[in-house]
Amino acid sequence: MKDHNADPVTDLVTGLVAALPEGRVLTDPDVTESYARDRTFVPPGKALGVVLAQSRDDVVATLRWASEHRVPVVPRGAGSGLAGGATAVDGCVILSLARMTRIRELSPADEIAVVEPGVITADLDRAAREHGLMYAPDPSSYEISTIGGNLATNAGGLRCVKYGVTRDSTLGLEVVLADGRVLDTGRRTVKGVTGYDLTGLFVGSEGTLGVITAATLRLRRAPVQVATVAAEFTSLRDAASAVSAIIAAGCRPSMLELMDRTTLEAIDAWKNIGLEPATRAMLIAQAEGSPDEMAALCDSASFVAEASTPEEAAELVGVRRLAYEAKERLGQCLVEDVCVPRSRLPEMISAVEEAAKRHGVTIATVAHAGDGNLHPVFIFDRGLAEPPPEVWAAADEIFRGALDLGGTLTGEHGVGLIKRRWLGLEIGPVAAELHLGIKQVFDPLNILNPGKAI
Amino acid sequence: MKDHNADPVTDLVTGLVAALPEGRVLTDPDVTESYARDRTFVPPGKALGVVLAQSRDDVVATLRWASEHRVPVVPRGAGSGLAGGATAVDGCVILSLARMTRIRELSPADEIAVVEPGVITADLDRAAREHGLMYAPDPSSYEISTIGGNLATNAGGLRCVKYGVTRDSTLGLEVVLADGRVLDTGRRTVKGVTGYDLTGLFVGSEGTLGVITAATLRLRRAPVQVATVAAEFTSLRDAASAVSAIIAAGCRPSMLELMDRTTLEAIDAWKNIGLEPATRAMLIAQAEGSPDEMAALCDSASFVAEASTPEEAAELVGVRRLAYEAKERLGQCLVEDVCVPRSRLPEMISAVEEAAKRHGVTIATVAHAGDGNLHPVFIFDRGLAEPPPEVWAAADEIFRGALDLGGTLTGEHGVGLIKRRWLGLEIGPVAAELHLGIKQVFDPLNILNPGKAI
Ligand SMILES: Cc1cc2nc3c(=O)[nH]c(=O)nc-3n(C[C@H](O)[C@H](O)[C@H](O)COP(=O)(O)OP(=O)(O)OC[C@H]3O[C@@H](n4cnc5c(N)ncnc54)[C@H](O)[C@@H]3O)c2cc1C
Ligand SMILES: Cc1cc2nc3c(=O)[nH]c(=O)nc-3n(C[C@H](O)[C@H](O)[C@H](O)COP(=O)(O)OP(=O)(O)OC[C@H]3O[C@@H](n4cnc5c(N)ncnc54)[C@H](O)[C@@H]3O)c2cc1C
Repeated sequence: MKDHNADPVTDLVTGLVAALPEGRVLTDPDVTESYARDRTFVPPGKALGVVLAQSRDDVVATLRWASEHRVPVVPRGAGSGLAGGATAVDGCVILSLARMTRIRELSPADEIAVVEPGVITADLDRAAREHGLMYAPDPSSYEISTIGGNLATNAGGLRCVKYGVTRDSTLGLEVVLADGRVLDTGRRTVKGVTGYDLTGLFVGSEGTLGVITAATLRLRRAPVQVATVAAEFTSLRDAASAVSAIIAAGCRPSMLELMDRTTLEAIDAWKNIGLEPATRAMLIAQAEGSPDEMAALCDSASFVAEASTPEEAAELVGVRRLAYEAKERLGQCLVEDVCVPRSRLPEMISAVEEAAKRHGVTIATVAHAGDGNLHPVFIFDRGLAEPPPEVWAAADEIFRGALDLGGTLTGEHGVGLIKRRWLGLEIGPVAAELHLGIKQVFDPLNILNPGKAI
Repeated sequence: MKDHNADPVTDLVTGLVAALPEGRVLTDPDVTESYARDRTFVPPGKALGVVLAQSRDDVVATLRWASEHRVPVVPRGAGSGLAGGATAVDGCVILSLARMTRIRELSPADEIAVVEPGVITADLDRAAREHGLMYAPDPSSYEISTIGGNLATNAGGLRCVKYGVTRDSTLGLEVVLADGRVLDTGRRTVKGVTGYDLTGLFVGSEGTLGVITAATLRLRRAPVQVATVAAEFTSLRDAASAVSAIIAAGCRPSMLELMDRTTLEAIDAWKNIGLEPATRAMLIAQAEGSPDEMAALCDSASFVAEASTPEEAAELVGVRRLAYEAKERLGQCLVEDVCVPRSRLPEMISAVEEAAKRHGVTIATVAHAGDGNLHPVFIFDRGLAEPPPEVWAAADEIFRGALDLGGTLTGEHGVGLIKRRWLGLEIGPVAAELHLGIKQVFDPLNILNPGKAI
């Protein structure tokens, strides 16, 4: 029987607590608050509480309860997202998968792993390396991000110029639907065409179609020999042209990362990497097999450092992995994520530089250059609650510029909350209608991450 | 004004003819009949006529008319399918895309091509080779199949052990929806996560969600050096074990095809390849780069032939490409298409041999062995209208065996008409319901290839 004196919200949460094993639900407002945002500035809504799921059954119970009471559910991995995808909405329950960290199976013979969503990306990679394998998709955040978050955003990474994005390593999923039913998609085989590609539909759906509770992932042979170089350029456009030239010449590096002067200065200020005054851009590249694949890279470079030991290689790549943290030391960051056909990279780079100049904003750019994927990072005052109008004006120009070049609004971070304004520009009204139709099929009550992604 | 003396069917077709430019609609029953089947035995329904589309606008006009009059539409490429996907249904219009053969664009810099659906797969590959590139997915049927059919079935091929299936080469699509609206999905970039993966949803949907009128496809560098070998084995299981061992040893051949004795005999009877009495199986393998990748292959082989010229290599691979035609000379064929995790290949091979023995049927097996994808081909009497019960009994056993090994009913041919009976076994009731929901969103009147695939 109901206690008529109780507050209806408390009542609601009491029901959730009762539906789950002990200790799964956190409601202390300070704690809830700490789970309510990802790495964006977006102010979160007020959540009812946080569920720390430890099993698929916990997820099932949470979603059944949420469906019954029409409570929004915001799935959450590590909260390292850059689009507001895991940001709490008012009255929601935050469903954290971070404690589901089991690697259920790792089969060297079939080169697959079956993992829970809370496994940290780099942990899976390390587990695979023990068998001479690797888990290829490696977002720069791979030491903190979860596999579930990677799947829900279809994360890219440094190695994806050669090995593809998360989708390309995903064979099958276990998903809990909005109403609590469990669905297995895909398979353990490398090929298969039975039915529609539901696996692909869930990958990149940003928690709006179902909650991923396990994934069958493809592992790959770890390369035996890797050549690593860092090449410096006296102009950013030169560096971008070098990238287009390398790709056009048929080289397929396994990493091809670009950093502009502003980024390098931020890193230099923090870690003193001995940045030369004339260096306007740096490329960090890796190739498997023969080092002469890299020769083309060096043609227009002003200086080339080649790693001769694994430690030196790790150091060169480490510079790139510092970029984001270094920039956060300069102020608040709005990290953007446009992607253009590889031949258009120099034009896109110029468009970013012009937008920065025209609107008087600071932009520090890093790029997964081999994929044509740029992260122009807008740096703005720590005191501000959100990016000032001139930042949005410059961002708007960059988004439209990318689309004009045959590119996309987001190469890997997702639409989340912060890019919904521009979504229609890219996908158009017909696709938008189909998206709503699909959402309706999977989540008729609109409880899964409402207001995000689509 | 309507002519009230006219037959309603004639009336209907007159409307279609009027909606299209001259010469697009064929209604002669003999001609229609010749477009009504694919390569399966399935008896086709009676079609109203055939539309030979020459442009997207023709497709739009056909689908608008079909929606208005609730007429089923069966999209068709070359009709080389092996699942009954392009088989006519009663009262349908067959929509042939075979005349839309333009390669709209081929960009070596971005390594992409934009093509119409009627382009023959091998023609695109040849066009790409002029620029040092290739179109990787190469079903054995690539000299006759169309890109549209490849997309609609997510075709695999000989090279996909290294380069992936059709989906892995698809960046974006132009699709005409059931109601005649045009949708662009995907992009020209190698990465992108804006919105749900509609591109992936259309690939493999067997013409049930929309008609593909153009595709942006990824090209790849053509390999410079390829080593080709043919290895013979005195037992089929030995050959299958060699495949698992090669993959487990970390080799990544670009082709790894297996043929059993029955297949080899069929080829030998036709083309006299000098088959040794003791040879029970043959592997045809290619590897790019150093030929020693192949060494592992030879360990358990009884004889190894290594190609020393491109002509010799073409000859060895040619043997594999003859397999299907050779078998058709033995009788009618039911070509099956199970796929299992690569480590389970020897077990699956044994299961096929046992099923053949138990049910007294002739099975000739070829396999894209590097993918764990087997084609057991059931050979039955030319006089029969359809496969006899013992063939279905053996097939049923093989399907269930594949699923038990963690495999799938169809690696690349699709479900079409002939595998719908087993579909539920693999995808289960929850997925089945979601499939119907998705179908309803894209094709609410159920006019697109009704009764197929799902
Ligand atoms: C320093 C830094 C570098 C980065 N570099 C890259 C990069 O190189 N490439 C890249 O792609 N991204 C990058 N990112 C962005 C981010 O790390 C990725 O998007 C990552 O995949 C998010 O994982 P997460 O576990 O933190 O997910 P969260 O941020 O917690 O969630 C992301 C989205 O996934 C949903 N979600 C999470 N788990 C599940 C689940 N189990 N089921 C359903 N939905 C779920 C959430 O609702 C949300 O919409 C970077 C971020 C930082 C801070
Ligand atoms: C000798 C031989 C060898 C084969 N080897 C292989 C192989 O190695 N790998 C493999 O995967 N397959 C193989 N196949 C099967 C077949 O060739 C493939 O499925 C091929 O992709 C079919 O292409 P098609 O143009 O003939 O399509 P069709 O048979 O005409 O149609 C196939 C399906 O696609 C739909 N469709 C066709 N065009 C469109 C379009 N534009 N829009 C929407 N839907 C469309 C049809 O409705 C149907 O459902 C082989 C077949 C033969 C005869």
